[in-house]
Amino acid sequence: MKQTNVKPADGKLGIMVVGCGAVATTFMTGVLMARKGLAKPIGSMTQYDKIRVGRGSEKKYLHYKDIVPLADLNDIVFGTWDVYPQNAYQAAVYAEVLKAKDIEPVRDELEAIKPLKAAFDRNYAKRLDGDNVKNCKTRWEMVEALREDIRNFKKENGCARVVVIWAASTEIYVPYNEQYHGTLAALEKAMKDDDREHVAPSMCYAYAALTEGAPFIMGAPNTTVDIPAMWELAEKTKMPIAGKDFKTGQTLVKSGFAPILKVRNLGLAGWFSTNILGNRDGLVLDEPANFHTKEVSKLSTLETILRKEDQPDLYGNIYHKVRINYYPPRNDNKEGWDNLDIFGWMGYPMQIKINFLCRDSILAAPLLLDLTLLMDLAARAGRYGIQRFLSFFLKSPMHDYTKGEEAVNNLFDQYVMLKNAIREMGGYEADEEID
Amino acid sequence: MKQTNVKPADGKLGIMVVGCGAVATTFMTGVLMARKGLAKPIGSMTQYDKIRVGRGSEKKYLHYKDIVPLADLNDIVFGTWDVYPQNAYQAAVYAEVLKAKDIEPVRDELEAIKPLKAAFDRNYAKRLDGDNVKNCKTRWEMVEALREDIRNFKKENGCARVVVIWAASTEIYVPYNEQYHGTLAALEKAMKDDDREHVAPSMCYAYAALTEGAPFIMGAPNTTVDIPAMWELAEKTKMPIAGKDFKTGQTLVKSGFAPILKVRNLGLAGWFSTNILGNRDGLVLDEPANFHTKEVSKLSTLETILRKEDQPDLYGNIYHKVRINYYPPRNDNKEGWDNLDIFGWMGYPMQIKINFLCRDSILAAPLLLDLTLLMDLAARAGRYGIQRFLSFFLKSPMHDYTKGEEAVNNLFDQYVMLKNAIREMGGYEADEEID
Amino acid sequence: MKQTNVKPADGKLGIMVVGCGAVATTFMTGVLMARKGLAKPIGSMTQYDKIRVGRGSEKKYLHYKDIVPLADLNDIVFGTWDVYPQNAYQAAVYAEVLKAKDIEPVRDELEAIKPLKAAFDRNYAKRLDGDNVKNCKTRWEMVEALREDIRNFKKENGCARVVVIWAASTEIYVPYNEQYHGTLAALEKAMKDDDREHVAPSMCYAYAALTEGAPFIMGAPNTTVDIPAMWELAEKTKMPIAGKDFKTGQTLVKSGFAPILKVRNLGLAGWFSTNILGNRDGLVLDEPANFHTKEVSKLSTLETILRKEDQPDLYGNIYHKVRINYYPPRNDNKEGWDNLDIFGWMGYPMQIKINFLCRDSILAAPLLLDLTLLMDLAARAGRYGIQRFLSFFLKSPMHDYTKGEEAVNNLFDQYVMLKNAIREMGGYEADEEID
Amino acid sequence: MKQTNVKPADGKLGIMVVGCGAVATTFMTGVLMARKGLAKPIGSMTQYDKIRVGRGSEKKYLHYKDIVPLADLNDIVFGTWDVYPQNAYQAAVYAEVLKAKDIEPVRDELEAIKPLKAAFDRNYAKRLDGDNVKNCKTRWEMVEALREDIRNFKKENGCARVVVIWAASTEIYVPYNEQYHGTLAALEKAMKDDDREHVAPSMCYAYAALTEGAPFIMGAPNTTVDIPAMWELAEKTKMPIAGKDFKTGQTLVKSGFAPILKVRNLGLAGWFSTNILGNRDGLVLDEPANFHTKEVSKLSTLETILRKEDQPDLYGNIYHKVRINYYPPRNDNKEGWDNLDIFGWMGYPMQIKINFLCRDSILAAPLLLDLTLLMDLAARAGRYGIQRFLSFFLKSPMHDYTKGEEAVNNLFDQYVMLKNAIREMGGYEADEEID
Repeated sequence: MKQTNVKPADGKLGIMVVGCGAVATTFMTGVLMARKGLAKPIGSMTQYDKIRVGRGSEKKYLHYKDIVPLADLNDIVFGTWDVYPQNAYQAAVYAEVLKAKDIEPVRDELEAIKPLKAAFDRNYAKRLDGDNVKNCKTRWEMVEALREDIRNFKKENGCARVVVIWAASTEIYVPYNEQYHGTLAALEKAMKDDDREHVAPSMCYAYAALTEGAPFIMGAPNTTVDIPAMWELAEKTKMPIAGKDFKTGQTLVKSGFAPILKVRNLGLAGWFSTNILGNRDGLVLDEPANFHTKEVSKLSTLETILRKEDQPDLYGNIYHKVRINYYPPRNDNKEGWDNLDIFGWMGYPMQIKINFLCRDSILAAPLLLDLTLLMDLAARAGRYGIQRFLSFFLKSPMHDYTKGEEAVNNLFDQYVMLKNAIREMGGYEADEEID
Repeated sequence: MKQTNVKPADGKLGIMVVGCGAVATTFMTGVLMARKGLAKPIGSMTQYDKIRVGRGSEKKYLHYKDIVPLADLNDIVFGTWDVYPQNAYQAAVYAEVLKAKDIEPVRDELEAIKPLKAAFDRNYAKRLDGDNVKNCKTRWEMVEALREDIRNFKKENGCARVVVIWAASTEIYVPYNEQYHGTLAALEKAMKDDDREHVAPSMCYAYAALTEGAPFIMGAPNTTVDIPAMWELAEKTKMPIAGKDFKTGQTLVKSGFAPILKVRNLGLAGWFSTNILGNRDGLVLDEPANFHTKEVSKLSTLETILRKEDQPDLYGNIYHKVRINYYPPRNDNKEGWDNLDIFGWMGYPMQIKINFLCRDSILAAPLLLDLTLLMDLAARAGRYGIQRFLSFFLKSPMHDYTKGEEAVNNLFDQYVMLKNAIREMGGYEADEEID
Repeated sequence: MKQTNVKPADGKLGIMVVGCGAVATTFMTGVLMARKGLAKPIGSMTQYDKIRVGRGSEKKYLHYKDIVPLADLNDIVFGTWDVYPQNAYQAAVYAEVLKAKDIEPVRDELEAIKPLKAAFDRNYAKRLDGDNVKNCKTRWEMVEALREDIRNFKKENGCARVVVIWAASTEIYVPYNEQYHGTLAALEKAMKDDDREHVAPSMCYAYAALTEGAPFIMGAPNTTVDIPAMWELAEKTKMPIAGKDFKTGQTLVKSGFAPILKVRNLGLAGWFSTNILGNRDGLVLDEPANFHTKEVSKLSTLETILRKEDQPDLYGNIYHKVRINYYPPRNDNKEGWDNLDIFGWMGYPMQIKINFLCRDSILAAPLLLDLTLLMDLAARAGRYGIQRFLSFFLKSPMHDYTKGEEAVNNLFDQYVMLKNAIREMGGYEADEEID
Repeated sequence: MKQTNVKPADGKLGIMVVGCGAVATTFMTGVLMARKGLAKPIGSMTQYDKIRVGRGSEKKYLHYKDIVPLADLNDIVFGTWDVYPQNAYQAAVYAEVLKAKDIEPVRDELEAIKPLKAAFDRNYAKRLDGDNVKNCKTRWEMVEALREDIRNFKKENGCARVVVIWAASTEIYVPYNEQYHGTLAALEKAMKDDDREHVAPSMCYAYAALTEGAPFIMGAPNTTVDIPAMWELAEKTKMPIAGKDFKTGQTLVKSGFAPILKVRNLGLAGWFSTNILGNRDGLVLDEPANFHTKEVSKLSTLETILRKEDQPDLYGNIYHKVRINYYPPRNDNKEGWDNLDIFGWMGYPMQIKINFLCRDSILAAPLLLDLTLLMDLAARAGRYGIQRFLSFFLKSPMHDYTKGEEAVNNLFDQYVMLKNAIREMGGYEADEEID
């Protein structure tokens, strides 16, 4: 590895996951199993991917850890919050994602991971009814209780660093409102005023994390850290933030398939995406207010990849529709069905249908590993604020919309951003252009 | 446009198409209609795509014609050979690809395109029974008759340049045999000896074209110009050659979708591709000897994109199967059905199914336009031999296998090669790496 | 033909279609073309199907017209109402369902079919904005104006009989309300009181038709004749009524596929149905109030075929979900996607996915022909009230729910009912049991 | 139950299964588990289905066992032959069809089921390499060894009756040859002459079974008992025979879906069926000679359901193609993909695609249970020769083709035949017509 300015990854890394459901337990179990050599962390960029560094005859392909100092799987310690009190072993079994043979070998370690009481407000997720919740009078009290949790966890586990990642449900939609979200002061005031309409519980987690020196990642489509107040806090605390919404099934495919059309200059008349899923995530999304948050997150993907202003003949009139359906028979094994109405030579129409029988948690788990390791890296590299280079992992990547920035949704462009950042942190030239 | 060393595209460009079937007539009709402003050449890179030139703050996005001197659609003159005597209008109507309203406005021009007699050997395509064929005693006579055709066509139409493109059926498989295909002298001897086993009719077309100073493009999977003898001829005549097999439906999707898996480091256990098609191409492929040629062409795609040696955990054991089925009810509207067995975190399996309801000729037509224009460009730029930068358009891109070169099948890598070549011919830096 | 009590089909039969859109014009054009021998009325039971009559060695298979006296295609005269003033030719061209070559030969006849002004209330179909509407002060005035239309049409065209069929849009949902729909007197009072909440415009058409001695068929899911008040009117006027909702794409498949599971004793855990459609019907259904009407119509299908009380192990816990999506790129070519989660031996799960690329009007048109001819037959046979034997053609077949009757949705059972009724009217034994 | 002439099902019933692979062990495990109340035999007609007996007001719906005397699950004893020596527990684990939790509770019973040495000829299944085979010099010796096996099994297990069912691989195609298969004498001569070309090993099993008074069922597409010689033997021994080829996935759907088209009088232009499967059955079928046997079996389905002579406009020109592909990544979870090109009103085309993610053994297991129980019933009812009433369970139902009989492939017609036979054996009227 080259000499870089990034601080080394010494000591334990605490990963505190908000929500101890299917996604979180699949992530934890996989890491624990991988560390024993009993499973492979397939799908994880930090564990598998190789990046070119150098150009022409100088070029070589290296794993991330050979370019930058990444935390080792053996140094990870897990913590979690949840509205249900079951430990991670019980939650993993309940989730029915993994087979018994893939959980039992790390049962003891999972049983030791017991959820802290959650900072919860049932108005934000009506379909959940757990009672392992903090008894806080105000949002500000929530923040303080969560900060204490993080401090205790760090101390008890002897962690050098902590990262907080949200893997809980989608909250109801909280649109950006300058009056409450425009500045840090405004947000703090709203927390102290216990303004439950404008301050989602997730904002308390983010606030607590950043204040305690822990990077924060939003894995649901919640707008939590997608507001200037949080950007200000990230700047103030010199902490990185990332979000939002793990890019798992249908949107992953969409962000990779739309570039095929673009690169081939084929036209697109319509794209219909529908999804059936039956896990707790689906249950929550069955509530219209929660679904709206998700829909907003999923809809922007195409428009930024196939830009109507660049190719009006091809992309001037795309009808894009996204539907999510709660459908319990399949549990975590969600399924996407996409229909693309494309057109070619002389405008003749053709159709492409993509049917993705995926597994929500299996696709999400490696994202949690990569996002936490790379956020920890970013913090050590002194990068703070929105980490756009992590757009690759996110359905609705954060960007400073107040300055007219646009999200980058093209999977291959996102990959360039990821590679360039790793190169740069590794002391190499960030030599790829986003075309 | 920058000052470059490429000769300008002055004068008429003759495009002589071997085979006047669905693909050829859809191509011709579209060009003629586009030139009247009555149709859009969607899917054509030369007409739509924009490439970045320059880096960072210097960068700008330009159409190909603003980077390099491309022949104008108005300067194109069409010629053709076919075993059936019907003119291009009749053939277009027979093909049932285009609606009457998209053919009638250029009926006169199409009627004027009358197939020259084909150099044909029924042993190479048993299912075809046309009799508009040359009466040649030997393969060498075929060559001479074809050369005369080209010279006459050029003179009669006042063409400054001619390009010959094969859009006829797949011949039976002619594997590379060093004794007959290893050197130009050996091939010429075989032609003069009338060795019908080792010299396919298509080789006569290629030989004639190159000798007459016309670039040659192989649009079927035939091995025609994929032999050292032809490379030697191309070198000797300073002519560019390209091939093989237009990348239209299923392989297009495969070459674009496999990179999604690769970039996301998801594993692949199996990929099953099946195809139903009912046009003359399908009929010919229903003959096992002809199908074999196609199968060889389609099978290598995955292996060069998802390299087992780079990621043995992910791609070490891929079961890849391709099946093509003649199925008349759909005619030209071929349909692909792909099933991908992928795996993620901890090895858990998932499935992706892609159903492509495409139109063979609609997807192929813009490839003919791009390949002929870019080959003409290459010739004017003094580039000869195998044109690897055109791999983007081809299912089984040519490369010098005698030197251990590998085909580039990744759609996005192929796109980089295309862009770099255009940049280079345009006097810009070929600044993208293939990762 | 045997001697029966059914009156002969002498004289002209007027078919008055409410709504002159894609469905109506495809129906009319097909009948006019078929009559000239220029098209085949595929999908029509009355024109193609053969029924067994007699048993054992006596049995023979006869076309309907050889069992009962059916009106001849040559005796049909078309009339229509619509909110848009375009004649049937213009409407057929606008609909883009049929190719020019299938419309032009009967252009004159279609042009002569000019829509009468519609009885319309925009509150029942917000997305429609036509202005070819009657200016009526009350619902009762609507009824009287429509009755006059029917009388005039009959006289002007010298019709012996008239049938009225609704092929217009889905109205907003009007649930059965005993106070207004419970008796004929109550309904008439509501009409005279101009109670626009409880009296849908479609009820005025039905009332007018029955009162003028014309059978009435409801082709949309509107509850129009699905109320005791209308049953009373049908009894009083001795007129047959039928409805509701033409069984075209997805429900047709569902009503035929569910019996496969039932007959094989395979279990069903869930059935998810989604639909994309872009015609005027889709536009109207994009309005939630209108969709609700449709959803109610589509949901009952499964439950009456796979009865949980008969096979609790197999059908005790079915999750059934139906979603319809307006998606303009495809226009009339709607598409259904069904996912069935079934289970077999020892409860092991399996999946079936059915993707139906259908054409709404092509599937509906023969239903209009069959329903009008068979309703005319029923009237001549002296059958009045709800015609359950026509359930075969309907998504949500009418039945007397006030007496606890259940709808018959199994396609094969519906077919038995249809055959038995034809047999009976033809003087044969109605000898099949519904199993 | 009514008084009938069927002998009671007293005593143990031995079920001897040829082939102890995935299908056989799934069947055995399920029966053993069901008998302990630990699993449900879903998909089994004898265990779940109810049939109407009586007509009109007299009618009632009864389980089969309440109409006819069926053997009880508790009276079943399993035996098996296989080329591999693993016991049924080992084979079940190896098959990877059932989860451990569904096998372990009956482990002891499964372990006790040890395969007898198979009568095997590698020329009939090249891909199999087991060596648990009999050492017989001639086909006739095979017969004698198998007869001894059956006698021993019966005695050792105290069975009152035995049924033999073939659940082994598809052999290579042995077309009917009158000279060797035309009479029993001819066949016996061929056996004694050790004519290995005309006498498949499966014929030895059938001959042995019938001669020992055991009904024989052919579950693969082998022509074994589909020859006059065997019919003669069945007649002579008064034994029932049934076959051939268990109707599991794609053909089950086809035989149920084609009737939907027929009943709705929709036209069919083409039906393309492809299948991927990765179990031992798929491996054997990867050999062209074995696939041919299967293809012949699968191809006749459509033609007998949608008869071109009855409806030439609708079914006069169907292009039917069936492809089976060995594809190991999925093992027993085979998958069918069907594409139907249908047409409706005025001949307009539409498409239906059916994707069946099924499990071969899960679908086959209940067929083995039903076929063995119903064949045992037939024997006790004195029915011998071809049992056409079991067509319901078979892909290529046997019938006396020498007399011009046609197979009945329509699922619903087959169901009528099944019901009528049960009614008849139960002393009720066989009162349904096959329409």
